[in-house]
Amino acid sequence: MLKKQNFKGKTELVANWDTLQRIFIRPENEEVRATLVKYMEQILFGLHDFLMKNVGITEEASLKELSDRFRDSRINRNPSKKLADVIKGIIENIAPHAVNVASPYFIGHMTSAIPFFMVHLQTIVAALNQNPVKLETSKVVSILERQVLAKIHRIIYDKNDVFYEEHIQRPGSTLGSFVEDGTLANLTAIWVARNIFFKPLSGFAGVEKEGLAVAYQAYDIERCVVLVSQLAHYSLRKSGGVLGIGNENILPVDVDSSNRMNMGKLQTAIRNLQKGPGPKTRILAVVGIAGTTETGTVDPLPEIAEICAENGIHFHADAAWGGPVLLSKKYRSLLSGTEQADSVTIDGHKQFYMPMSCGMIYFKDPHIMDTVAYHAAYINRPGSVDLGIRSLVGSRAAMSLILGSALEIMGARGYALLIDHGIETAHAFAEEIEARPLFELVTSPQLNILTYRIFPEDIKREWNKADCQKKKTLLAGLNNINITVQRLQREAGKSFVSRTTLKRRGCEDMVVLRVVIMNPMTTIDIIGEILDEQEDIYHRQFMCAQG
Amino acid sequence: MLKKQNFKGKTELVANWDTLQRIFIRPENEEVRATLVKYMEQILFGLHDFLMKNVGITEEASLKELSDRFRDSRINRNPSKKLADVIKGIIENIAPHAVNVASPYFIGHMTSAIPFFMVHLQTIVAALNQNPVKLETSKVVSILERQVLAKIHRIIYDKNDVFYEEHIQRPGSTLGSFVEDGTLANLTAIWVARNIFFKPLSGFAGVEKEGLAVAYQAYDIERCVVLVSQLAHYSLRKSGGVLGIGNENILPVDVDSSNRMNMGKLQTAIRNLQKGPGPKTRILAVVGIAGTTETGTVDPLPEIAEICAENGIHFHADAAWGGPVLLSKKYRSLLSGTEQADSVTIDGHKQFYMPMSCGMIYFKDPHIMDTVAYHAAYINRPGSVDLGIRSLVGSRAAMSLILGSALEIMGARGYALLIDHGIETAHAFAEEIEARPLFELVTSPQLNILTYRIFPEDIKREWNKADCQKKKTLLAGLNNINITVQRLQREAGKSFVSRTTLKRRGCEDMVVLRVVIMNPMTTIDIIGEILDEQEDIYHRQFMCAQG
Repeated sequence: MLKKQNFKGKTELVANWDTLQRIFIRPENEEVRATLVKYMEQILFGLHDFLMKNVGITEEASLKELSDRFRDSRINRNPSKKLADVIKGIIENIAPHAVNVASPYFIGHMTSAIPFFMVHLQTIVAALNQNPVKLETSKVVSILERQVLAKIHRIIYDKNDVFYEEHIQRPGSTLGSFVEDGTLANLTAIWVARNIFFKPLSGFAGVEKEGLAVAYQAYDIERCVVLVSQLAHYSLRKSGGVLGIGNENILPVDVDSSNRMNMGKLQTAIRNLQKGPGPKTRILAVVGIAGTTETGTVDPLPEIAEICAENGIHFHADAAWGGPVLLSKKYRSLLSGTEQADSVTIDGHKQFYMPMSCGMIYFKDPHIMDTVAYHAAYINRPGSVDLGIRSLVGSRAAMSLILGSALEIMGARGYALLIDHGIETAHAFAEEIEARPLFELVTSPQLNILTYRIFPEDIKREWNKADCQKKKTLLAGLNNINITVQRLQREAGKSFVSRTTLKRRGCEDMVVLRVVIMNPMTTIDIIGEILDEQEDIYHRQFMCAQG
Repeated sequence: MLKKQNFKGKTELVANWDTLQRIFIRPENEEVRATLVKYMEQILFGLHDFLMKNVGITEEASLKELSDRFRDSRINRNPSKKLADVIKGIIENIAPHAVNVASPYFIGHMTSAIPFFMVHLQTIVAALNQNPVKLETSKVVSILERQVLAKIHRIIYDKNDVFYEEHIQRPGSTLGSFVEDGTLANLTAIWVARNIFFKPLSGFAGVEKEGLAVAYQAYDIERCVVLVSQLAHYSLRKSGGVLGIGNENILPVDVDSSNRMNMGKLQTAIRNLQKGPGPKTRILAVVGIAGTTETGTVDPLPEIAEICAENGIHFHADAAWGGPVLLSKKYRSLLSGTEQADSVTIDGHKQFYMPMSCGMIYFKDPHIMDTVAYHAAYINRPGSVDLGIRSLVGSRAAMSLILGSALEIMGARGYALLIDHGIETAHAFAEEIEARPLFELVTSPQLNILTYRIFPEDIKREWNKADCQKKKTLLAGLNNINITVQRLQREAGKSFVSRTTLKRRGCEDMVVLRVVIMNPMTTIDIIGEILDEQEDIYHRQFMCAQG
């Protein structure tokens, strides 16, 4: 878009109208086309070649150093770079200090490699630039989105043909909704549950219209709560805060020894809340998790469903992580009970291997989202097919086009192979941990996430004969070892596992190393290398001092 | 990723592990690279060539017909398409029925053409696939994001160097936050305003923790409200609903004859709410709009700022549309007062010409977002630099990389030229309307949006001597004419203006045609063609019946 001018002997970039218009004109001439394709080639392979050579997360430049490079807060009056320079700059200056999430040695978070074709699909979305908030800026893409929502709804709820035939393209039905991420999907679910609970009564127009304070009066209650596993994602607390319920009213229920919500505790909590002393309380929802962020565990969903049904409580399943396991014939049963949830969160950018970001919320009842419908004079008019009518968000990218295409390219079986690999590799990882005396497996993988820690044998022996006070000291030491080894491995730049702190009622917090296996290139050999490196770091760092 | 197999003489696509892995491996061989580039070429030019030949929004296929093509809710077990087929399918079957928002004849909505380089930048974001929720999945991209936020903060608030030097990279400071769109940006602003208002007191831990019902008790009030222009975006009502305030408590303030919030009415409303009879009420925020969705008008921001300051009320400016006008030296003054707002919404996918979607919220006080901070054990740990700590959303795409690069490629002046063109072309459009006897200009453009309607001279003459009842009948007729002409023009597929319904207190609703000028290719000649076509449609459709 730039014109070069000689100004006092210097070549300068200048924005002017002619050059500016050119960037909006479709390139008719072969030379321009060739240039634009060359840029794409640089993006596709320049970036990737760099990442190939630099497998890990390098810490060559400290945060402080990097921050110092990005301190200029002024926008240049004239253009300072051409597209080619921007691409070059990103390859040379950004990529080396970004995180190589595609590396098979990067097994610490839920962000991983994505198939190559996903980049192409994202490019299509940008080139078409449709806005599915309304039909007038998306048309067929809104219709396609409804189909994609029905496809995912079907893998969750597996209703019959008559059901999908009726609802798939019916403007008044909502099988689900795309939002930015799992946080907003969970927020949408609790929003809907809140509004269903505080529905209009005679003399009360509903909580969405009149607000929570009036709703509490209308329903003669003083407090409402949501029950979640102690391992629930923090977005549920945030939802409680945003929705006016108060995040202290998102109540954690203890987990059992397998890190699954304890059903006895859940029933006691419900009984106490509904009939106990204290403020008059109602339960808006119980949230079961299919794949907790920290341990990948799956709550006893069928039991939660039964308890919710008995008590008339909205059952939300947070399957942001685990949802796509439903595509695996082999492991689908791990998620059984999801089909009984009133609402289900699934993330596209997690185990659907989509680029950032794509949250989705699904509902068993295609009319339940009516309770969050909004209209305006210029869009989302009542009766229209605009998808923005029932949606937390307004304008958004057509991520459904990516997911719909990916389902065609991969097939259910393609995704199932990835899922199966993740789960089976995580189990192999667990076996490897148990075979190595330096480590202790803390949470076994139910899906493809596990936690473990360094627990040297000499400390184990001390632990077994230690009293309470001594154990406290030993744990502090262990936590420090694990924090240090994780940090040093990350800084070495070859591999990355994450760490978290497990909170256990009546116990001190335990620092653990956390592993998420979703990259199909992560083999058991690579896992061996990662553990070897941790052992090396441990020995180098702690053995001299102790030995 | 697919393997072709001969199965009973048929070629079938099968997902298997070897082929699956290949899609994750970076293409080392030249042939594979060439293929991937060829696909990109198809995406870039196949799509665009199609759109060139098909300028408008074609209605060849009715919604019903299109819906019938997307009724299959089953996911194939095996892959059904290769990437090449998906691309071909999108060009041949999706693009023709999507909306050509890039056409200079598409002047009905805030979605328009984007510069070619934006598609490249979006591809980079997908290829890097960073997640700025935390440093461990984004590193330098989080740092870059802070810089981009500071740059936009600076065009809004224009604080001094010392201010930006202090806050630009300081983990504890938040100059702004990226969210999916303007709806979520407005929601974030009101969320923060709510929490600032209901801050902790002795015996009260704050509204975010304890919820609204307890907050009302702690502050001894019965209701809280937000005052907005009658022309405010519907996302503000939605925010009231989501946040538990109640959307009926988002109170519209009448506009004056220029569609700007009436300051007398605002002051009366504040006085009545704070001291009048009825429930004990507090005002959480007043929202001024810099570019209303329907008429593009700018509220009297300096006056609103003054009134808010006097009354100690949070002042939010919704500049989702108008924000980038601040880059234009010529028209920047139209937005004066924005710099006094406590929070400001700006959308990247509107007048920053970014692909869908990019909402942003900015705050004058770099610490105000502390009131919505969330932590977890595995990310967003207290004291960390994770951007997810103070954010409505969790995982998201690194849209800041696109905006930051675009600012370098365009320069402030590049954007200013686009802004100036939009405003000046809208004024030329208004002159053209006034020169044509068939039309009536309803709202003059303050920025680059205007509304008008077909108001034939014979009806004008009748109107001038009509009594109230007769006017009602005439208006119904006029509304019908405008609805019909808008629909027929849209269906003809060459041009698109939108329509909306202006609600005026004490008057019947008026249907108007609405025009948004942001495509630099939209010239006054094209505007002439669009109006000619409307005249033709009107004459064909209504003159026989009437004449």
